[in-house]
Amino acid sequence: MAAKPNTRERILQASLQLFNTQGERNVTTNHIASHLGISPGNLYYHFRNKSMIVAELFTEFERRMEVFFTLPEGATVTLEDKTLYLERLLEIIWQFRFLHQGLEYLLESDPELAVRYRQFSQRSLCNTQKIYQAFADAGILQLDTRQVETLSINVWIVLSAWTQFLTTTQGTQLNLSQQQLRRGIYQILVLEEGYLAPAYQEAVRALCDQLYVPLEDIRPC
Amino acid sequence: MAAKPNTRERILQASLQLFNTQGERNVTTNHIASHLGISPGNLYYHFRNKSMIVAELFTEFERRMEVFFTLPEGATVTLEDKTLYLERLLEIIWQFRFLHQGLEYLLESDPELAVRYRQFSQRSLCNTQKIYQAFADAGILQLDTRQVETLSINVWIVLSAWTQFLTTTQGTQLNLSQQQLRRGIYQILVLEEGYLAPAYQEAVRALCDQLYVPLEDIRPC
Repeated sequence: MAAKPNTRERILQASLQLFNTQGERNVTTNHIASHLGISPGNLYYHFRNKSMIVAELFTEFERRMEVFFTLPEGATVTLEDKTLYLERLLEIIWQFRFLHQGLEYLLESDPELAVRYRQFSQRSLCNTQKIYQAFADAGILQLDTRQVETLSINVWIVLSAWTQFLTTTQGTQLNLSQQQLRRGIYQILVLEEGYLAPAYQEAVRALCDQLYVPLEDIRPC
Repeated sequence: MAAKPNTRERILQASLQLFNTQGERNVTTNHIASHLGISPGNLYYHFRNKSMIVAELFTEFERRMEVFFTLPEGATVTLEDKTLYLERLLEIIWQFRFLHQGLEYLLESDPELAVRYRQFSQRSLCNTQKIYQAFADAGILQLDTRQVETLSINVWIVLSAWTQFLTTTQGTQLNLSQQQLRRGIYQILVLEEGYLAPAYQEAVRALCDQLYVPLEDIRPC
């Protein structure tokens, strides 16, 4: 049986839920306290202000993302691993989607978080480059150093903007459907399609065929 | 000699400048009036509220974007045209960057704008598909219908998120440098690299070589 979460943990969980569904900027610490049925003083005992809650949620987001952005030392990455990694990354971004919802505003109003986000994105880009370099070294992708960098940036942009793409163009609000998640993985895998070594093209295309799902509001026109 | 802009036009220009530099959510109609040295009543005579100003700026954004998203009937598009188009599109997105800064918040608080944005993005995606289909028909790119759709979505995401990528990972604030603009064009052109017909590969790679500029905060790692 899971232990009952303590107040600190409950505050974090409720904040994440409220930030995601109502937007971080629309939620005050008073809302969070009242949602949990605790006094503002009790909340204040654990977190002096909203920035501290956001900072702690960002730490958790970073921790979860980095598990999937880091290549295990000496390990070989298979195509299945990569699909699974992308699925987890997209899921984590969705679970913490308030961060990328009004990211520029959030970072502008919190310089410390801005520095942390910048370092995090640079580390993620660096790790992505290492992963693609490993695929190039293994002869799976045919990429020079510049292409590794360029591909990593485009992967990072599509990955971090997929949620915003869905909410602003598809009107997705409360749930990322399994379909939309798979389509996101597909959009990212396709970015490397042009660089596949001939021996791997068939397997990747077969995988892409499995992942492709039409989006409701995008039709051939 | 250019005619002196009238009050209505001055309100729009000042609003755009203030929204871009201070964030739309931080700017009230009183700020705009005081910035222009006019009375709130005078502003109110032209625009009943801030949403009406945003709506009019969005109309102008849409109008400018669509010029470059629409393929002239029966025209042949050259590689140079495409580079120029991408440059203009990125510049327009930068000039109206407040729209994509807190896009999800903006659309959430303005359901009418949300509908317009959704229609605009669907039209843009549709036009992008037509442009790539024309390149496929001309034998420049080797793409099937599904690849046309997938590529168009990735192009749309990188195009619309390039400004956010720069501000959140590079700390870009007041100006989009010519370097960062060219790098954006490069990131988008590279998306189609893998689909180039052999006869066009050399010309596109030479163009990409010209457009590639290193980003300050992204280094090989």
